[in-house]
Amino acid sequence: MAAAQVQRMSRLMAKTLRDDPADAETLSHKLLVRAGYVRRNAAGIWTWLPLGKKVLDNISTVVREEMDAIGAQEVLLPALLPKEAYEASGRWEEYGDLLFRLKDRKGGEYLLGPTHEEVFTQTVKDQCTSYKDLPVMLYQIQTKYRDEARPRSGVLRGREFQMKDSYSFDTTDEGLAESYALHRAAYQKIFARLGLDYRIVSAVSGAMGGSASEEFLAPAAAGEDTFVDCPACDYAANTEAVTFVAAPVDGSAHGPVEEIDTPDTPTIETLAAHLGVPASATLKNLLVKVDGEIVAVGVPGDREVDLGKLGEHLAPAVVELVTAEDFADRPDLVRGYVGPQGLEKVRYIADPRIAPGTAWVTGANKADTHARNVVCGRDFEVDDYLDVVVVEEGDPCPSCGAGLKLDRAIEIGHIFQLGRKYADTFQLDVLGKEGKPVRVTMGSYGIGVSRAVAALAEQTADDKGLCWPAEIAPADVHVVAAGKAVQTEAALDAAEQLRAAGLRVLVDDRAGVSPGVKFTDAELIGVPQILVAGRRVAEGVFELKDRRTGEREELPLAEAIARLSA
Amino acid sequence: MAAAQVQRMSRLMAKTLRDDPADAETLSHKLLVRAGYVRRNAAGIWTWLPLGKKVLDNISTVVREEMDAIGAQEVLLPALLPKEAYEASGRWEEYGDLLFRLKDRKGGEYLLGPTHEEVFTQTVKDQCTSYKDLPVMLYQIQTKYRDEARPRSGVLRGREFQMKDSYSFDTTDEGLAESYALHRAAYQKIFARLGLDYRIVSAVSGAMGGSASEEFLAPAAAGEDTFVDCPACDYAANTEAVTFVAAPVDGSAHGPVEEIDTPDTPTIETLAAHLGVPASATLKNLLVKVDGEIVAVGVPGDREVDLGKLGEHLAPAVVELVTAEDFADRPDLVRGYVGPQGLEKVRYIADPRIAPGTAWVTGANKADTHARNVVCGRDFEVDDYLDVVVVEEGDPCPSCGAGLKLDRAIEIGHIFQLGRKYADTFQLDVLGKEGKPVRVTMGSYGIGVSRAVAALAEQTADDKGLCWPAEIAPADVHVVAAGKAVQTEAALDAAEQLRAAGLRVLVDDRAGVSPGVKFTDAELIGVPQILVAGRRVAEGVFELKDRRTGEREELPLAEAIARLSA
Repeated sequence: MAAAQVQRMSRLMAKTLRDDPADAETLSHKLLVRAGYVRRNAAGIWTWLPLGKKVLDNISTVVREEMDAIGAQEVLLPALLPKEAYEASGRWEEYGDLLFRLKDRKGGEYLLGPTHEEVFTQTVKDQCTSYKDLPVMLYQIQTKYRDEARPRSGVLRGREFQMKDSYSFDTTDEGLAESYALHRAAYQKIFARLGLDYRIVSAVSGAMGGSASEEFLAPAAAGEDTFVDCPACDYAANTEAVTFVAAPVDGSAHGPVEEIDTPDTPTIETLAAHLGVPASATLKNLLVKVDGEIVAVGVPGDREVDLGKLGEHLAPAVVELVTAEDFADRPDLVRGYVGPQGLEKVRYIADPRIAPGTAWVTGANKADTHARNVVCGRDFEVDDYLDVVVVEEGDPCPSCGAGLKLDRAIEIGHIFQLGRKYADTFQLDVLGKEGKPVRVTMGSYGIGVSRAVAALAEQTADDKGLCWPAEIAPADVHVVAAGKAVQTEAALDAAEQLRAAGLRVLVDDRAGVSPGVKFTDAELIGVPQILVAGRRVAEGVFELKDRRTGEREELPLAEAIARLSA
Repeated sequence: MAAAQVQRMSRLMAKTLRDDPADAETLSHKLLVRAGYVRRNAAGIWTWLPLGKKVLDNISTVVREEMDAIGAQEVLLPALLPKEAYEASGRWEEYGDLLFRLKDRKGGEYLLGPTHEEVFTQTVKDQCTSYKDLPVMLYQIQTKYRDEARPRSGVLRGREFQMKDSYSFDTTDEGLAESYALHRAAYQKIFARLGLDYRIVSAVSGAMGGSASEEFLAPAAAGEDTFVDCPACDYAANTEAVTFVAAPVDGSAHGPVEEIDTPDTPTIETLAAHLGVPASATLKNLLVKVDGEIVAVGVPGDREVDLGKLGEHLAPAVVELVTAEDFADRPDLVRGYVGPQGLEKVRYIADPRIAPGTAWVTGANKADTHARNVVCGRDFEVDDYLDVVVVEEGDPCPSCGAGLKLDRAIEIGHIFQLGRKYADTFQLDVLGKEGKPVRVTMGSYGIGVSRAVAALAEQTADDKGLCWPAEIAPADVHVVAAGKAVQTEAALDAAEQLRAAGLRVLVDDRAGVSPGVKFTDAELIGVPQILVAGRRVAEGVFELKDRRTGEREELPLAEAIARLSA
């Protein structure tokens, strides 16, 4: 095997920048560009320069080792896929604009794979015929494609990105649970080895369809996901997965419905002010179209409807907001004054807070008029209770009732019991023990490998720059030649000795670059240990600096090498 | 680091097949499918199953180590590329149907990268500003896309495939020559380590434009390239690169041009038979259109015009055959009876064999009439000498004159001095030593990594199946449990001990599969050493078999382990 080379900064394809790129909003985006780890080719499309490629590979290696350790087999599927399998599953349509679609020279239709459930199902159907062939876990680390509407945050949300996706195939639900548990444990090991701070939260299923599902979230200000965290118990969840449990109350003491004149109160704020009641005592009714049919959604006046959550609950139905034209078609729906007690032939979906027995101020279905003492279960019925409000800080924990905390995070992993959805689509059966066909049940598990680079950068960087954990860093030690020829010579010699001791070495041998710039660059690049060939090299004394703590110490080279290779 | 796992055949995603796939023509295609290394997803689009992925990775590792050893830096560029750079270089058009093109949700136009000269040039322009930043060599091992008209031969010519491409950047021609030499030497090491039999041949440049260029060819019956090999000297070349040197002869003794009546002789064969002369004494004139203009191409009657070679010589002009309509437009051109002595205003291109002073039988530009004693330089002039005939076995070696041999081969590598073509397009300059801008000169170097899998399979397989070199094989040893429970136990135990000794192990622990099928599968899969837990396991004795030679020996397990890990 060829030995790893010492990488010289004088030749390194990594131009450091003093200023943040103009379009960068997040810390990792700024620093990965400024330190020369990545280069933008187009919106959401990036080049991994040498330093970035090393970090990406180091993460892949950790992922690969832990996937191998649970007995998953590595494969590599194509990214360019014929549309047929995705048509069969319905995702050719469902993905909408998110899918990159193209045609070949013969007019055949293809997509660039955003995820590979369909093709893995076909692969196993092709290869496995008996229960004896299962369980099986397959994985790949591969380039994926999603035509995001707003690619942003550098490599955090790209349109071309690296992902580890794996899939488990079992004949029983217990088997699936076991494959899921194996992945969960492997993910815990992976993220611990990467040095990532993470939380495991319950998640809703998204467009995948299926049952048990958890996300691995790395808390970070740049995160696009919000999650809730209970300070009192161990509950944590994706905000879309938080559920409020309805508790019926005794509503027999409420008086009858009473209409009140409320001119110029089209909003909850104006209404609450006019009546002198809190917004939480009012009932807000949002009209939406679900597959074209008008549906009303009721939530307390102080809460917002989470349209994402609503869409998830009602999927695969398509949810749209109503338009002025829809109101024109339906004179019975009085804009700004809708109340559930007067709605005929309109499906009524309500938040669990609109519990049976609760009384509300709500629209009277007449212009400038509201109604009070409108009691759920007496004056109107709820067709479906769905938790559709935007979760807020302080909402009760579904597990212990304490006030929840809200935090931002980056989704770095997702594990998911798919069940038989894809096996049904492709009729994936194997011959069971009793000689009859058994439908296979599947799990699907993802890690955003390129995203993990950004997540790690976000969590570990400080005001001086990147600051990688040792196993993930692009080098073990960054040797800096302070400037004089003798120092450069000493630095190159030290670099060679460090390499011979088995260390991965970056050496700043640049001529005509001031020591100050070199030190600043070393801190920006973020290799964990910095060895400076400075004023005492003639005596064989170097300065060793810990990038994170800033601690520095002068010591003979041999000692530095011994310490670094320990 | 997690230890490599023993891979059990009972779970391995590699179903072996007794029969060749119906669409397979080449040995590697048949065997890689039958042994469960690859699975077809669509024409030219393949899945690498676990065994195939391991072979692919082993090859990549060798390539990576040798590229690192010459100081090339690994990067990863996107495969999805905005069209602008390829429009600037002209290749957005030039590639024609070979390019996969697509649009994003906003209508932006993209391609899937077939090769990355443009983007590497832009990268270096972005990162390097001074002669001090050069020379630089960059490489990637990446998925490439080419919409081949006839994807075939399994992974030998795919539409999605793995390639190592690298690019060198120098300020001087000498520097480029050095970067080229470094690559040439690295390629020699790589192909030697892979255990490939290969030849380095001079090549024409293809669509790339540029000067010095050599191909690395792996001789194989399945090869799509034909190359010539001199048995007397060390000359070898791509057939398209062979040149015949014209030697003028004394033509003064020839009599005057004489017309002869030759009814019903529209072909060389009928003409030669009618006149009783060899076909080689006749002059055949092919009419083509070059960018729409009619051009005649003269070659001896016993030779064929190589339209590919002609196209290469005349690129970027477009060469087409003339049609019946073209003849109708030009009554001076008599189909089947064209001769250069009567052609006015038609450019005449000739093979160097049509040397000044040579005399020919050729068309008289009248129906049913030919002319003899038509002497080159006396009766007609050649506008351009171009070597455009199809090379044939026995043609003289341009180096020593001996008769050339023709062989088929797979192109596994290509090294190429691009020069300043792309640097000119993107104005890639750096500040030179004298403070003035210097235009950069480039080299481009490719290795077909997935193709190398097929080439190795072609060269190393025998009638029993695949037969990998040790460094490339998916495992070091294939342990086979003959069938009884005690043998399976012994095999699994041996496998574990082999793994502990640092070996990569595949173990056939399948229940309900006969020993005969297991042995056949082991030979088909082609791991270099096969260790059988057979009838003497109770005594601790195994059979060790060399896959290639078939030699077998009974020995105690400890000895087998010692020998295998030596």
